[in-house]
Amino acid sequence: MTIQADVAPGLLEQVDQPRVGDAFGELVTRCWAAGARPGSVFEVLERADGAVFATDTSHWFSGPAQWNGAETWACEQARGRILDIGCGPGRHALALTEAGHHVLGLDSSPGAVAVAEERGLSVVLGELGEAEALGAFDTLLLLGNNLGFLGSRESSPAVLAQLAALARPGSQLLASTRDMRNSQVPETLAYRARNRALGRLPGEYRVRIRSRATATPWFEYLYASVDEVRELVRDSPWALCDSHQEGTAVAVRLELRG
Amino acid sequence: MTIQADVAPGLLEQVDQPRVGDAFGELVTRCWAAGARPGSVFEVLERADGAVFATDTSHWFSGPAQWNGAETWACEQARGRILDIGCGPGRHALALTEAGHHVLGLDSSPGAVAVAEERGLSVVLGELGEAEALGAFDTLLLLGNNLGFLGSRESSPAVLAQLAALARPGSQLLASTRDMRNSQVPETLAYRARNRALGRLPGEYRVRIRSRATATPWFEYLYASVDEVRELVRDSPWALCDSHQEGTAVAVRLELRG
Repeated sequence: MTIQADVAPGLLEQVDQPRVGDAFGELVTRCWAAGARPGSVFEVLERADGAVFATDTSHWFSGPAQWNGAETWACEQARGRILDIGCGPGRHALALTEAGHHVLGLDSSPGAVAVAEERGLSVVLGELGEAEALGAFDTLLLLGNNLGFLGSRESSPAVLAQLAALARPGSQLLASTRDMRNSQVPETLAYRARNRALGRLPGEYRVRIRSRATATPWFEYLYASVDEVRELVRDSPWALCDSHQEGTAVAVRLELRG
Repeated sequence: MTIQADVAPGLLEQVDQPRVGDAFGELVTRCWAAGARPGSVFEVLERADGAVFATDTSHWFSGPAQWNGAETWACEQARGRILDIGCGPGRHALALTEAGHHVLGLDSSPGAVAVAEERGLSVVLGELGEAEALGAFDTLLLLGNNLGFLGSRESSPAVLAQLAALARPGSQLLASTRDMRNSQVPETLAYRARNRALGRLPGEYRVRIRSRATATPWFEYLYASVDEVRELVRDSPWALCDSHQEGTAVAVRLELRG
């Protein structure tokens, strides 16, 4: 396809921004309606450096056989009363429930919560900061790279405190992320270098998810190495007890200090 | 994945636009390097209404067995000296060359031209408006929906004249497009209705292709029904002789008037 055409004057001014809404929920709803079939729905992650990355939405419905080793390892540690934070349509919650665990899901996407409920899961619609009424859990899950909710070096103390409010001494936090230091994508290496130059952690990504003409608000999402997680939790209520890495896939196990 | 996070003040201001460049060439180059393997590279088409659509770049390398019936029909009509306009990495040119035809490709994407040459094809890097020196062809191809290069009702007379300058009386123009009247995508129906309200053809799309942090310039790309093609060519040097439609896939055969 040739890409050049005479651009009419004012063409750029006629370009609209996507509407802000539950893009993630729309994606998983459409994918679920398509039988969670690979190739049926693709999501676009847009990063603040102008980079876009498309992935197959069916991965939100993948079963344990498709998970990376870090996520499998994390799920093996789950015990007691479990809260799956940012559960989406519930791939981990479903597998853990089927394995006999008691799992509650939490997600702020109405569309994702509706799909998770259709799949028979117990899910609460809401934000992490509003979840204290749910009581204390033995295991908090931040899987699917949801360690990212720590956001940034700046925001992570508050998020770690919110997580601690859902735990009791000895409770564990199982979180997965990606170690992107050796990314093969030049734009990602440049973005990380720029973050470092700005005094941020290299993996502090500012992103939004786009689905057709809907986009989530821009949000911060952190990718961290094990060493960076150790640094982030040092002065928090949490202690890093264990970690597991396979390739770029990382999982960590934190325990609430007594 | 929950999507809400406290957005730091000024976060939106820190969002960069992609750099303008040969996004299409980057996509096909990466996909070719990955063996044109499905699932290896995805492209993002962004439309001026803020909608994004991701597709698997490997489709630019598909063979005749994967083509829709309209494109197959169009290729069956090819004869004589052939110019494949907007050939990309050359899926049609390759199949036609292998079938014994003499095909020259034309594309304005340096990356796509390089890949097509690696595949053994004869390709010229350039714009349609600069192609007159290539002489006259018996068959002009606008496949892969490249009827879209007509752009709009406003731009199509000039493009049809440029095409005529590459033909002689009796030469044919084989073009494919999509009849999107019954799109299942609500945003697309809304976009088409808005175009109509603005006095445009409903299928006058303003789009750009994005690859990681690179985007093509915005350009106009037309999707038309057979009836709309008939209307567009009425006062042109071309006559609509034949058409073939299977589902939404449309191909037309035009002949240069004597």
